[in-house]
Amino acid sequence: MNHYHYKCSNCNSKFPIEDIEKDSKYLCPKCGKAEKNRPLQGVLWIEYDYDKIKNELNKDTFLKIPAGRFWEYPNLLPLEFNSQVKNFTNINSEQLDRLQLNENPLLKYEIDNHPVLVFDDTRNPTLSFKDRASSLVALKAIQLGINEIAAASTGNAGSSLAGICARLGLKSHLFVPSTIPTGKKIQIQSFGAEIYLVDGDYDAAFDLCLEVSTKKGWYNRNTAFNPLTIEGKKSAAYDIYIATKGDIPDLIFVPVGDGVIISGIYKGFWELKKLGWIEEIPKLIGVQAKGSDALVRYLEKGQFEYFPASTIADSICAGAPRNLYMAADSIKKSEGFAVSVSDEEILAAQKIAAHKMGLLIEPAAAASFAGYLKLKEDEMIQNKKAMLLFTGNGLKDLDSLMEWNVQSEKKTVEEWKNYFELKIIQKF
Amino acid sequence: MNHYHYKCSNCNSKFPIEDIEKDSKYLCPKCGKAEKNRPLQGVLWIEYDYDKIKNELNKDTFLKIPAGRFWEYPNLLPLEFNSQVKNFTNINSEQLDRLQLNENPLLKYEIDNHPVLVFDDTRNPTLSFKDRASSLVALKAIQLGINEIAAASTGNAGSSLAGICARLGLKSHLFVPSTIPTGKKIQIQSFGAEIYLVDGDYDAAFDLCLEVSTKKGWYNRNTAFNPLTIEGKKSAAYDIYIATKGDIPDLIFVPVGDGVIISGIYKGFWELKKLGWIEEIPKLIGVQAKGSDALVRYLEKGQFEYFPASTIADSICAGAPRNLYMAADSIKKSEGFAVSVSDEEILAAQKIAAHKMGLLIEPAAAASFAGYLKLKEDEMIQNKKAMLLFTGNGLKDLDSLMEWNVQSEKKTVEEWKNYFELKIIQKF
Repeated sequence: MNHYHYKCSNCNSKFPIEDIEKDSKYLCPKCGKAEKNRPLQGVLWIEYDYDKIKNELNKDTFLKIPAGRFWEYPNLLPLEFNSQVKNFTNINSEQLDRLQLNENPLLKYEIDNHPVLVFDDTRNPTLSFKDRASSLVALKAIQLGINEIAAASTGNAGSSLAGICARLGLKSHLFVPSTIPTGKKIQIQSFGAEIYLVDGDYDAAFDLCLEVSTKKGWYNRNTAFNPLTIEGKKSAAYDIYIATKGDIPDLIFVPVGDGVIISGIYKGFWELKKLGWIEEIPKLIGVQAKGSDALVRYLEKGQFEYFPASTIADSICAGAPRNLYMAADSIKKSEGFAVSVSDEEILAAQKIAAHKMGLLIEPAAAASFAGYLKLKEDEMIQNKKAMLLFTGNGLKDLDSLMEWNVQSEKKTVEEWKNYFELKIIQKF
Repeated sequence: MNHYHYKCSNCNSKFPIEDIEKDSKYLCPKCGKAEKNRPLQGVLWIEYDYDKIKNELNKDTFLKIPAGRFWEYPNLLPLEFNSQVKNFTNINSEQLDRLQLNENPLLKYEIDNHPVLVFDDTRNPTLSFKDRASSLVALKAIQLGINEIAAASTGNAGSSLAGICARLGLKSHLFVPSTIPTGKKIQIQSFGAEIYLVDGDYDAAFDLCLEVSTKKGWYNRNTAFNPLTIEGKKSAAYDIYIATKGDIPDLIFVPVGDGVIISGIYKGFWELKKLGWIEEIPKLIGVQAKGSDALVRYLEKGQFEYFPASTIADSICAGAPRNLYMAADSIKKSEGFAVSVSDEEILAAQKIAAHKMGLLIEPAAAASFAGYLKLKEDEMIQNKKAMLLFTGNGLKDLDSLMEWNVQSEKKTVEEWKNYFELKIIQKF
């Protein structure tokens, strides 16, 4: 049963499962702190018995698992699995099928004569990367016997949690700043989630969510706070490994807001290396919006400074990235770096992705492409196998597409005929 | 090379490939007619040498093909395939990968103690069923050496064609009524398609599109008019067959607008029966909106009457369904029937799908569920294996979700704390 334990990313203390999960603890019991407008301190991560896994699972077997089905590697998940009947406790296969992520996430393009790999997470159940975290958290809640899950969100995490809960028959509670864009609010509400509009910012919603869920006994999916959000997101690294048949890219451009996606991807590759299945972790290149560049500044100056964030890429808008420290660490250990791009560069990249790749992506996803376009002539990038992470579908944020302000002309049939010089009216 | 021929659905004349494809003909050269506000006459369909295919391909091999990859059965497609090098002429595998449809379309639920199967086509490349037709048409255009494709559309077919063309490096031209909803217009334009807003209805756009594409030499994807739209959509029947491992449903609820989807699905099952792989074609139950029920009326009265159509389910809004006759025939031959549902019933079903299944679907897709909910106590349905066809993602039409008019309350943090009776302010 005890096939994993928790470890603090700050003080390195180790905790057995029951110390954390019995009383619904989330941050490190020794040093954990959630302070207003600050990154979280003492975020936990989960470690398995990698030597044992090595003996039970080999690389070739793993590579035969289809992408997008993280439940196919139970030894590497913090879930209770009965290996005799090959079942997750209290979870049936029909439920798992409803969580299927994009099974063919790898797309190959050529952009200005450079080959580019795209990892497409825009076709997950609620059309975003966040489904990886929501799904694992929801499965955990079921095993903990909790039927209600709460989270603070500015949009995608909320609609993801709401959608995944609806698929599994769970109830979700979302605490969101009252300034949330209408489109995102509708996505959350349409799945039947309870929504609490907080007259305040994301931080206020975050704190309120913690208090209320503690009182109510709801499971909490606040990003980074719940270590399973990082653990769920590691599945993207596995899917990259599987989809490329082990021939992983040299570098990966990852949009960074709260820093959980990049930390999760690092964790996944770190495990693949621990298992001896890859030699090197791809360099992770964190891409931020200029108006929300806390990680870029932290890596430059070595300390966190809070500024209110603002960018069109709302999914990566975070003044105080909750998982800043782990994200910075992930970048350093992968020998990557961070870069920021302007909103104009993001919109331009979004447009190129739609026109040249046929991929409608939301601005946060386009940030990774914008980072690539900015750096593609750099010698660090050239002749390297580069991958772009596309994290959310463009239809989640129609307003940003309207920002392109594409013009169109309206004419009568006769005017169009003149325009096309159709002198004779043909009959069909 | 000549592994198929065309056959008129009206006069039964047969035509070799070159008679149709050489001069870009679409309707039957003998009896074809495209008249304003009338269903098309002389729609062609494609027949293969089924006896030969039976010898080359067996049921078990076919069932091992993953769902969502119609190019894996070249003998059953009107495309040029070189079986020695296992390649479609002029098409590479990277292009095909970009067309991958939802590979796990089968979801299982229980609704009011009835087991219900869902065929989920909301996670295709542009999030709708139309990608099946657009993809086949686009591949055909490449093989015909044509780089530009035109279509008339009120929305989804347009954004599908635009997105698929962008994925393959083709140019698309969309003729749309100037009353098109903003969201749908943006989806088309964002993929870089040329859009021509026609001051007139769908019929005017349809006719203009035919004239302009003939003059310009563009390939035409007008639905039903181009027989490959039906042929592309037949792949859904194959995917149902594959996803259910041959254990196909007894009846399928299909939303009906122009009548091409239901005709395509019938065609696919008809072929599976011809090949001896299924014994019976599932009963097809065509579901229409009350404000757009030409097929229901045609089946009742035996003749077509034109009324302008109006419904919230814009993807199935068609006063003169282009493929009416073939759709009616498909329903009769499958021993199914047609039913209409009100806009209120559609919105209610859309809401249940989101809340209880976690599936955000557009109103047209919800029509199939509304039809099921209306009939589920009927003895024709009870104890039968029923499948719902979900044809488009809810995010394609955010406006309809706003129609639910879900209310939400905004409060300050203190007010929410009172609401949840959080007397003591806890610190985390």
